[in-house]
Amino acid sequence: MSNYAYLTNTSLGEALKEYLAFLEQRKLQYRTEEIPAADALGRMSARAVYARLSSPHYVACAMDGIALPAERTFGATQTTPVVLRESEWVRVDTGDPLPQGCDAVVMIEDCEEGEGGVTLRAAAAPWQHVRQIGEDISAGDMILPSFTEIEPAMIGALLAGGVLSLETIAQPRVGIVPTGDEIVPPGGSPKAGEVMEFNSAVFCAMLRRWGAEGVAFPVVPDDPQKIVAALRRAAEECDMVLLCAGTSAGRDDGTAAAIRALGEVCVHGIAIRPGKPAVLGAIGAKPVVGVPGYPVSGIIVLEELVKPVIDRLLMRERAAAEAVCVRMGRKLVSSLKYREFVRATLGYCEDGNLSAMPLGAGAGVITSFTRADCILDVPQNCEGYEAGDRAHVRLLRPIERIARTVRILGSHDPLIDEAADELRQQDIRAYVSSSHVGSMGAILAVGRGEGQLGGVHLLDETDGSYNVSYVERFLPNGGVALVECVRRAQGLIVAKGNPLGIRSVADLPGGARYVNRQKGAGTRLLLDYLLGQSGVSPNQIAGYAREELTHTAVAAQIAAGSADCGLGILAAARMYGLDFVPVYEETYDLLVSLAAMENPQVRAFLRVLSSEGFLRRLDALGGYAYDQPGRIKKLWPQK
Amino acid sequence: MSNYAYLTNTSLGEALKEYLAFLEQRKLQYRTEEIPAADALGRMSARAVYARLSSPHYVACAMDGIALPAERTFGATQTTPVVLRESEWVRVDTGDPLPQGCDAVVMIEDCEEGEGGVTLRAAAAPWQHVRQIGEDISAGDMILPSFTEIEPAMIGALLAGGVLSLETIAQPRVGIVPTGDEIVPPGGSPKAGEVMEFNSAVFCAMLRRWGAEGVAFPVVPDDPQKIVAALRRAAEECDMVLLCAGTSAGRDDGTAAAIRALGEVCVHGIAIRPGKPAVLGAIGAKPVVGVPGYPVSGIIVLEELVKPVIDRLLMRERAAAEAVCVRMGRKLVSSLKYREFVRATLGYCEDGNLSAMPLGAGAGVITSFTRADCILDVPQNCEGYEAGDRAHVRLLRPIERIARTVRILGSHDPLIDEAADELRQQDIRAYVSSSHVGSMGAILAVGRGEGQLGGVHLLDETDGSYNVSYVERFLPNGGVALVECVRRAQGLIVAKGNPLGIRSVADLPGGARYVNRQKGAGTRLLLDYLLGQSGVSPNQIAGYAREELTHTAVAAQIAAGSADCGLGILAAARMYGLDFVPVYEETYDLLVSLAAMENPQVRAFLRVLSSEGFLRRLDALGGYAYDQPGRIKKLWPQK
Repeated sequence: MSNYAYLTNTSLGEALKEYLAFLEQRKLQYRTEEIPAADALGRMSARAVYARLSSPHYVACAMDGIALPAERTFGATQTTPVVLRESEWVRVDTGDPLPQGCDAVVMIEDCEEGEGGVTLRAAAAPWQHVRQIGEDISAGDMILPSFTEIEPAMIGALLAGGVLSLETIAQPRVGIVPTGDEIVPPGGSPKAGEVMEFNSAVFCAMLRRWGAEGVAFPVVPDDPQKIVAALRRAAEECDMVLLCAGTSAGRDDGTAAAIRALGEVCVHGIAIRPGKPAVLGAIGAKPVVGVPGYPVSGIIVLEELVKPVIDRLLMRERAAAEAVCVRMGRKLVSSLKYREFVRATLGYCEDGNLSAMPLGAGAGVITSFTRADCILDVPQNCEGYEAGDRAHVRLLRPIERIARTVRILGSHDPLIDEAADELRQQDIRAYVSSSHVGSMGAILAVGRGEGQLGGVHLLDETDGSYNVSYVERFLPNGGVALVECVRRAQGLIVAKGNPLGIRSVADLPGGARYVNRQKGAGTRLLLDYLLGQSGVSPNQIAGYAREELTHTAVAAQIAAGSADCGLGILAAARMYGLDFVPVYEETYDLLVSLAAMENPQVRAFLRVLSSEGFLRRLDALGGYAYDQPGRIKKLWPQK
Repeated sequence: MSNYAYLTNTSLGEALKEYLAFLEQRKLQYRTEEIPAADALGRMSARAVYARLSSPHYVACAMDGIALPAERTFGATQTTPVVLRESEWVRVDTGDPLPQGCDAVVMIEDCEEGEGGVTLRAAAAPWQHVRQIGEDISAGDMILPSFTEIEPAMIGALLAGGVLSLETIAQPRVGIVPTGDEIVPPGGSPKAGEVMEFNSAVFCAMLRRWGAEGVAFPVVPDDPQKIVAALRRAAEECDMVLLCAGTSAGRDDGTAAAIRALGEVCVHGIAIRPGKPAVLGAIGAKPVVGVPGYPVSGIIVLEELVKPVIDRLLMRERAAAEAVCVRMGRKLVSSLKYREFVRATLGYCEDGNLSAMPLGAGAGVITSFTRADCILDVPQNCEGYEAGDRAHVRLLRPIERIARTVRILGSHDPLIDEAADELRQQDIRAYVSSSHVGSMGAILAVGRGEGQLGGVHLLDETDGSYNVSYVERFLPNGGVALVECVRRAQGLIVAKGNPLGIRSVADLPGGARYVNRQKGAGTRLLLDYLLGQSGVSPNQIAGYAREELTHTAVAAQIAAGSADCGLGILAAARMYGLDFVPVYEETYDLLVSLAAMENPQVRAFLRVLSSEGFLRRLDALGGYAYDQPGRIKKLWPQK
């Protein structure tokens, strides 16, 4: 029977168990190397280490004072002191060898030096204030057993025991071979169709954390022969290889084929998402893992499938993942077929519960990992969770920091990030997490206690006022306040030189490719208002259905030439060197829950708004006017 | 008023607060450096980092399939499919740029390719399976705020955003200047009176863990001018200096004087033990800490006083020390004057409580740190604890590992360490902690549930039997078993060639310098028995009162020439190349609590005793005879 399997849906636990057994059967072996003890921090001892010297290696005085035979002092008391002539004792310092014929040290503080000699008012016990040979370590003692991770104090024990070098388990060298015609090394100006290869750098960093060394090989084009050749070379030079597919769906088959050409595949297809197409194999006794191309999939495959092999190569026990129980902040649908690893943010609700909000991003979105506080581990055969259900997560940050993080959910403006950074400049213990959910999203999130505050700029078409009527309508129970922030110019962002000559929304139906914001965004509501005033209907506008989540994303489309126009703020137009046709000055406030205003971190964030540093940043961004940022404009007590 | 203080007893919290304020006043500053993003793991960002590129930087197909204008598919259903001619779509792979004129991708699985063209049975939504520019990151977005520790995924986000290098906070360079006439670098054969300098290596390792770089300077003799010169040079070359005193009591004054010669002392004398004579000062804006010479004191001073300065230099928040509540396994007396940091082992009692046993070792004993599971933090103004009191500890190892550690308290024999290592060779998740408390200590510790098992070799003088009568007398309630281990030769360990011609204990009164074992040790009881049989009285023996805790420590004294003879086992004599005069074959059993025998780790340890690997080790040590090691010899049910 052939040993390899076609694309399967093996459960994660099963796949790992099979793979480790498969590797043992092929006599997976670690290398060892002799290294200086002083450089051994974090390394694993390859065998038991025995002391070559005793420490102390001589009988040593443990105090500054005088050494003497203890029996000379017997009988000395406060009232019947013993007086010793100079020939009867020896002056010693800590660390001096105990002089011949002496068996005790009396501390200098207890010696009264006078004309007749030294007066002692207490008897010394034999061997007092003397460090015997081997008090710390005796030559021959086992200092460390096999497979022990070396901590700083152990380095001291090794050196004290005369062990200047020791045999350690060599750091596994892990070759990383990226493949794919579209893949290019990171650089300053990639062309359309070129995908930047940053996985190697991420994987090298992860491997370094785990005590292994990543060796990044050059990108290999999608040519089976070239892939096999690169894989052969990597397997020769390294202890393990990660063969990284491009982002295309069919690529993982090529990975499996290349491994089969030189070795054997144990499992192909694991019931996890992301990460399903991972391939677990070996060339000779060297593990080879086929890693899917999307960065999030790759990170999950390394965490779940590569790290256990690294631990085995280092003879280090696998740390049990610490699971924390949380409450789901919203519904999450999961496939019964897969165990899913979902990145999520965490926050403390007003009732003290830790609540998880899944980040909806795809496997290609690396920032979902930098923004996540935890990984939700959704078991296979679980349909997902309803809001309020209990679930388990693996923490990515200290839980205590999560309690200190200001959670902002609302309309996007770069000023939020600038205020957060200004706050960190003032207090390194302050953290801000912000998600772009639009102005209506802010009202819902702050109302439900998911966010502590959020940016809002909601125009009331009936009277031209901002925000107040929306809060009163959607949050009838109150418990919130509006905090003044800025007035900002909204305008039509267009290519440099405004080639289509767009002067107002009335010019949009002329065939310009528009890029819109998501439903619930204040900027979209503003567009609708302006269109209404100009008598233009949305379906006259090409691209009305094309949605972006931020001002910068809108500007990015225009800068790339994939759209001609979008409504947004001056700062975004400036970042991309685009032209800006101002069409409206709107009010951008912060909606804050009253409960959150008790929170010292939230108060610190609101104080930043009026700081000189932040106002300088606003001026630098451009397009903002302000009066008293941070002032409470209106407050609705909890009903 | 002068700013410096003479030796004080400032509380730790106060000293740290004063010192950090003192350093701020002197304009403590960090350095920054531009480094490649790929090398930035664990480094701190020095300022906010913004994306230079969007990711994706072009409108990209997110699936393998066909790209088309979505409107061509409108109306398609299962029963009324739409058929498209070849000119109406473009074949695309994941990552390809979206072709001009297209706004959607249909997955290859959903395309039925036939003669007339491609048949679609569902309408495509505009922008489906398309990754918009900036889906992950838009150029101009803030990728990282200031002072953020860089994790692997962040490296990916930086590279994806076109940030190939970034300004980070430079790793602080910390000069370590050891001083003292008696101090020598670690080496193979130090002379009497030479103390090996391993603190530098330990401190470098600790600093590396904290993200700083230790720079070890050569040892400086006790000459004030030379110390000042070395300190000046270190302060010029480094961001911070640790001036390390020798082990002598008066040395710390010299440290303070040297700092004052070039700068200023803020605090000298802190109410902690060990670590009291630490000096906190600065030369210009560069922090200088005077570190006491004993290794344990040094480690405590670095942890408590140096790490906060490193954190400040890295603009990293200080992690809150995680305290765990434990029960005291025995009484601990502490000084009201000092906050004491006491190394202790931990174990789970049979009632499930975590119990701490302070290690009684002095500040010179570095192995007390490698053996400790935790640091007991005894507050100032606390007299100490009674056995059973609650206390707080800082863990040095994962608590989950402590539950898996076999705790052995009993008579010393190197075979215990060999069995422990053999067990680790078989199972890297197995840990053994062993303390040498003698045979009587084993009976008390196992009886009280502090130890799970312990070596015993207690001779009953009335009938020549071993162990049984002691168990029955001291543990009348039972609940223990005796497990067979070995018979071993006890003998008189003497210098090579036996220069004093010692043949039996009857020869000891002739002036030989004897070295004894501690009270309660089986070997001491054996000596007393043999002396009694020979009609020799203990006070005829020079050195009867001189106590060592292990066989190897006894042999070490003899090898060093500080004693002529001691009773011990063959293995210890062999380790030191000494002669051995066998005088008795005794029985060395293991006393095990019945509750501990339910424990899988304890059972695994006992199984090792009969393993081939272990028996080979016994033969190599020499002097052991065995029949059925691991067999239960006698069992006393709990009464």
